[in-house]
Amino acid sequence: MKMSCRLRGHKEWNVRASTLARNTYNPIRDVIETLQIKPNPKKSYIPLSVGDPTAFGNLQPSENIIDAICDIAKQNDSRNYAPTIGHREARQAVAEYSAHQGMVSADDVILCSGCSHAIDITLSVIADAGQNVLIPRPGYLIHKTLGEGLGIVIKYYDLLPDQNWQVDLESLESQIDENTAAIVVNNPSNPCGSVYTREHLKDIVDVASRNRVPIIADEIYEHFVFSDHEFTAISSVSKDVPVLTCSGVTKRFLVPGWRLGWVIIHDRQNIFNKEIRSGLMSMATRILGPNTLMQKALPRILKETPQSFYDDTIRFIESQAKLAYQELKKTPGLRPIMPQGSMYMMIEIKTSLFPKFDNELQFISKMCNEQSVLCIPGKCFNYPNYMRIVLTVPEEILREACVRITQFCEDHMLKKLDNDVVSIVQGEPTRAASKKNFQKNIA
Amino acid sequence: MKMSCRLRGHKEWNVRASTLARNTYNPIRDVIETLQIKPNPKKSYIPLSVGDPTAFGNLQPSENIIDAICDIAKQNDSRNYAPTIGHREARQAVAEYSAHQGMVSADDVILCSGCSHAIDITLSVIADAGQNVLIPRPGYLIHKTLGEGLGIVIKYYDLLPDQNWQVDLESLESQIDENTAAIVVNNPSNPCGSVYTREHLKDIVDVASRNRVPIIADEIYEHFVFSDHEFTAISSVSKDVPVLTCSGVTKRFLVPGWRLGWVIIHDRQNIFNKEIRSGLMSMATRILGPNTLMQKALPRILKETPQSFYDDTIRFIESQAKLAYQELKKTPGLRPIMPQGSMYMMIEIKTSLFPKFDNELQFISKMCNEQSVLCIPGKCFNYPNYMRIVLTVPEEILREACVRITQFCEDHMLKKLDNDVVSIVQGEPTRAASKKNFQKNIA
Repeated sequence: MKMSCRLRGHKEWNVRASTLARNTYNPIRDVIETLQIKPNPKKSYIPLSVGDPTAFGNLQPSENIIDAICDIAKQNDSRNYAPTIGHREARQAVAEYSAHQGMVSADDVILCSGCSHAIDITLSVIADAGQNVLIPRPGYLIHKTLGEGLGIVIKYYDLLPDQNWQVDLESLESQIDENTAAIVVNNPSNPCGSVYTREHLKDIVDVASRNRVPIIADEIYEHFVFSDHEFTAISSVSKDVPVLTCSGVTKRFLVPGWRLGWVIIHDRQNIFNKEIRSGLMSMATRILGPNTLMQKALPRILKETPQSFYDDTIRFIESQAKLAYQELKKTPGLRPIMPQGSMYMMIEIKTSLFPKFDNELQFISKMCNEQSVLCIPGKCFNYPNYMRIVLTVPEEILREACVRITQFCEDHMLKKLDNDVVSIVQGEPTRAASKKNFQKNIA
Repeated sequence: MKMSCRLRGHKEWNVRASTLARNTYNPIRDVIETLQIKPNPKKSYIPLSVGDPTAFGNLQPSENIIDAICDIAKQNDSRNYAPTIGHREARQAVAEYSAHQGMVSADDVILCSGCSHAIDITLSVIADAGQNVLIPRPGYLIHKTLGEGLGIVIKYYDLLPDQNWQVDLESLESQIDENTAAIVVNNPSNPCGSVYTREHLKDIVDVASRNRVPIIADEIYEHFVFSDHEFTAISSVSKDVPVLTCSGVTKRFLVPGWRLGWVIIHDRQNIFNKEIRSGLMSMATRILGPNTLMQKALPRILKETPQSFYDDTIRFIESQAKLAYQELKKTPGLRPIMPQGSMYMMIEIKTSLFPKFDNELQFISKMCNEQSVLCIPGKCFNYPNYMRIVLTVPEEILREACVRITQFCEDHMLKKLDNDVVSIVQGEPTRAASKKNFQKNIA
């Protein structure tokens, strides 16, 4: 006892955070904070950045969901602890709701506190520190935030913007090595809005199969698919590759704050039975599952929500996508890529035509300063020279945002004069790098 | 691409779970499963094992809580994503509710998905793999489950059963070494039911202070204190030792399944400002906080719940504690220790008087087989020869349980005959070890 005192007694306090905490960071927040965004106080602020369909209040959940919550709150059996993987009735309802993914039983379902929790436990179980997980580029970087915290190495495979963001299969296979623990496939995609065909998904599964790498399917947008496209669950085309599918009620039912997600284990060849299945169960014990109000309401939410509610939501998002695409494809210096689903659109910024800005970050920061429209820079998806907009804002706001984005591009774009001498509409390029870009571009 | 194929193509599938998943395990579940508990089908099953005050349906939340949930569910602003550490209004309400802990502002509060999530992120941030955290013995082993998964070494300091489970301060200090990242203090205690005096808490803080070790205060039972005792928050007696306090609405408000807990940062000397505070914020981004229904309802829950509700609950638990204590102190071979708070009681099993059983696990298993009463063996709290009972079951059930426990003890206890020759009521000791115990005991 005294020795211990002598040993430590007069030290200064020095309390460090763990490696896990220091390595867990959110690139979107980091980039946005670094940008020091200041909207123009003279114009209403339009954040096309927030991936929350309920943020503007125009999209509301179906009334049956709210009724279900009130009914359940009054029930005496709705408040006790649930099993760590969730109430059986709720897991059974998810299994039935997910029949399009292939054979699913209640035993294959683990309820989570939202889809990000589902992704967290999935990554935590499937990869050890030092192993690697492949994620798409561009891609939503939650897998990077969660994985790198745990010491998992994140590697990237490319999507092809000119082929509706299909996976570059050669790029995918070239990234696989002995330490690859999983391939993340995000379909429909955030931020791209792509929806893969059955054939393309089969090609992806083939790569996974011949390399013996499991798939993590991030399918939170599984039902956000525009007309003329069809959603196929990657698990449904796999004969041997085991798949962990992450989804939830967040987006489709317009209750993201209510935090109900799930992992579904697809394992036709019992490859996960050795350790992964029990590992997922162990990880579920760490937090004890989602709120039981939502668990108890889940069967009613999944079964009683009218088809018209789903149809209205997706029809609205599709019409917004068409609106933004029509408006922005006319905008000088931009190239929007029409999405096939989800609730986002990626827009290429031809940065060489905006020589005042070294990169899309400066473009986006300045656009917010002047036009009070905030988009997420491609850097947040590991994909420079692009930006992502959210399509779920009210129509008049999206229309206004398109006008302002166009105005901004017109204000700052390089203009070609008749005599082939170039000038910048507002000011001169300020940096050598910009000048180089500028010269390269007009060459 | 082809090389990668050749490299891996014909291997068998071999997918291992991560170290984290393999090292995360719940000792209670493990022990209970190993015991292969089979209640007697002829007697109603009484699980005195479940630490859920709502499990039997006799304890119900205050109506204002249910009303608040229904009102909030209808509000359009109750469904969107909250900030990762929680809505400011909810954090402000927690700060006001927790004023007895010392100065707390909304910025010091991080909302979590239940108290176990609070403990998870607290341990995850404060200790790295290889560092150690001290926890009480006996103690609720969630810290072991969560910590060992992360590679944190769990060490134990002793509580003193004959001094109302106060901390053995010498034992505590002797366990501190250069790699000690935190001391967990659980007050009121699960499983012991102890409530520490202000003076005793000061003594604990002194040990932490002179050794420069932060404290994790697990105070989920902060308001479950019987008459003639008073709860003191350990943070309120600390001048320099930084404290992370974990609590939530689970127990006091009788809604454990609704998963709302919190961490409060107490850091009078800005020791946590260097890394721990931001580390906690980073960890909160992994799961995106608790259900927003509960967050939005929280100010009403914390402010509007009538005092009579709290008083009724604690009066009931105290009267149950007295009942069980009175009944079981007459039981041969048992020594109940009267709790001062929480909702549990520890009971010593004088195992030497039950020579048929090698340990308390066999005692408890057999008691369930014969009497259909299940208690949690001390092994689950790292404390053999004891068992824990839950006090929140209905009165008549607790009374019946005490009768059956007593019957079981009478049936199996060593009986002393007049001529000082001993015999066993039912059968002979079956193992050498038991015989030795038996002989030692009568010596």
